[in-house]
Amino acid sequence: MTKIVVDAMGGDYAPLEVVKGAIEAIKEYEVEVILVGLEDKIRAELKKYKFDSSRISVVHASEVVEMKDSPAASIRKKKDSSINAGIDLLKTGKADAFFSAGNTGACVCSATLFLGLLPGIERPGISIITPTLKGFSLVIDVGANIDPKPLHLLQYAIMAEAYLEFIFNIKRPRIGMLSIGTESSKGTDFIKECYQLLEKSGLNFIGNVEGKDIFSGNTDIIVCDGYVGNVALKVSESLAEMLFDFLRRELMSSWWNKLAVLFLKSSLRRFKRNTDYSEYGGAPLLGVNGSVIIGHGRSTAKAVKNGIRVAKAEFERSVNAHIIESIKKII
Amino acid sequence: MTKIVVDAMGGDYAPLEVVKGAIEAIKEYEVEVILVGLEDKIRAELKKYKFDSSRISVVHASEVVEMKDSPAASIRKKKDSSINAGIDLLKTGKADAFFSAGNTGACVCSATLFLGLLPGIERPGISIITPTLKGFSLVIDVGANIDPKPLHLLQYAIMAEAYLEFIFNIKRPRIGMLSIGTESSKGTDFIKECYQLLEKSGLNFIGNVEGKDIFSGNTDIIVCDGYVGNVALKVSESLAEMLFDFLRRELMSSWWNKLAVLFLKSSLRRFKRNTDYSEYGGAPLLGVNGSVIIGHGRSTAKAVKNGIRVAKAEFERSVNAHIIESIKKII
Repeated sequence: MTKIVVDAMGGDYAPLEVVKGAIEAIKEYEVEVILVGLEDKIRAELKKYKFDSSRISVVHASEVVEMKDSPAASIRKKKDSSINAGIDLLKTGKADAFFSAGNTGACVCSATLFLGLLPGIERPGISIITPTLKGFSLVIDVGANIDPKPLHLLQYAIMAEAYLEFIFNIKRPRIGMLSIGTESSKGTDFIKECYQLLEKSGLNFIGNVEGKDIFSGNTDIIVCDGYVGNVALKVSESLAEMLFDFLRRELMSSWWNKLAVLFLKSSLRRFKRNTDYSEYGGAPLLGVNGSVIIGHGRSTAKAVKNGIRVAKAEFERSVNAHIIESIKKII
Repeated sequence: MTKIVVDAMGGDYAPLEVVKGAIEAIKEYEVEVILVGLEDKIRAELKKYKFDSSRISVVHASEVVEMKDSPAASIRKKKDSSINAGIDLLKTGKADAFFSAGNTGACVCSATLFLGLLPGIERPGISIITPTLKGFSLVIDVGANIDPKPLHLLQYAIMAEAYLEFIFNIKRPRIGMLSIGTESSKGTDFIKECYQLLEKSGLNFIGNVEGKDIFSGNTDIIVCDGYVGNVALKVSESLAEMLFDFLRRELMSSWWNKLAVLFLKSSLRRFKRNTDYSEYGGAPLLGVNGSVIIGHGRSTAKAVKNGIRVAKAEFERSVNAHIIESIKKII
């Protein structure tokens, strides 16, 4: 059975929601979960549930990386953090995949440093799956590498293609380069160089795309540098929150409205679910030599459960082996 | 009375919606409007309305810049375009401000080339006003200058400060630099250099902000390079559209829902209005020697009307004179 090591201390609602999500995951999926972190706290949470104890184990790690900690410093100073300990279990083969909703930068640093990168990959990239009008799309990179070289973006495209092909069965996914217009002549020198590389790569490169294409569904993969990707991701999250907030205020502004909303409950719930990041379950950190999934800082139990599902799939479908093959073929 | 020259051929719904918006504007505001473009087409539209003909005039321009035209080429090849002709009216003092919902790049090129830049400004920047949870914020630049130098961003900050102060009466607006984290150590070398410049500028610089802060309302001005600003803008627009679309589909999915929605009509309409770009009326192109407002390509009559209001205010409150003063003081 696939073994997922989960950073029990990672995320704003850790360990409470993380432990709850792990319990839900073993009920729903064929996985074993290793919870890593402050043992006392984890056991105190575990006591709340009935579960098959042969499928959840606890590994103690004495330190916790806070969300505000500097990634590089936290790796060095907090040597026995739950992140480092979890990555170590992966490295030594005691687990098959790693999930953390903790400090993203620290996860990227720890995974890169201790697992190393796949042959042919120079930088890891964080990829996220976003809903679109026609299904979903994958954006890479959303913040692992804020000052990449064009070659890194080609590597991202190759990794993302393998991911979509072997996780979602999408053959030859369409790949777009994030720019400010669709013409190849538009964009910074960096974008133009990326365009050249992608065009002659043999990948299904459809050219430059714009910010709006992240949600249009006209492309399957969008590659970009980690700075613009990170901004796009955070802009999207906060806009969605603002719109939900406006909507809630309006819909709750009178008893009349509240009554009407009762009739719409299931529809509004479905609407929220369609656009809820926690359904998508975490962002694969592609390029490192291991299956590493990074969850949202505000991961709820559901998000953790889905993150474990994503980690399981990435390991079981041997995404990394396919990436290595593609890289050999193309670069 | 302030004279606004309006590019009657600019935008996806030109000249129909542009002419309609101009008519609405002269009814609502103390302005005269000069419609510039293909005279026959403009007059055919004008015939549909009753209005005070002393306050709307038409100036013929024989060419039209299409949305897909290359900005630089269109300036040279279509010399008598409505954009060039409108900018010329501004330059020769026959109009006080210019509004166009046409090709953004062509407007930026034409204005920069023919009007020139304000003393001390090296690049123009497009600024947009976005709604936030607590009011609104201004983002500059969203696409005029995709490869800026740090000094350009300092100039943007100064211009945006003058704009908010003299248009919205916000004294010492808070200025944030768009990065991927709030620490001064985070971000690309470019961001770090901008940080240094802004920190010692004497402006009310609150440090680095993240993508989510565009909608949080915790900062009044966000400065960024035109590439990331453009992506953020287009991501926001398309996400909002997608969410509205999801919501509409859900709410219209049964007769039961449709009935409940009837009771919510005014609330849903208010929700839409709060988040509707056309209420904000266009993006000031700051830094050029003249008042130039760029509208959304899909501007409706309402957006055109509001764009004319924004143009009128920028001219009447002498924003450019204040910018020149600030630049002298700070740089």
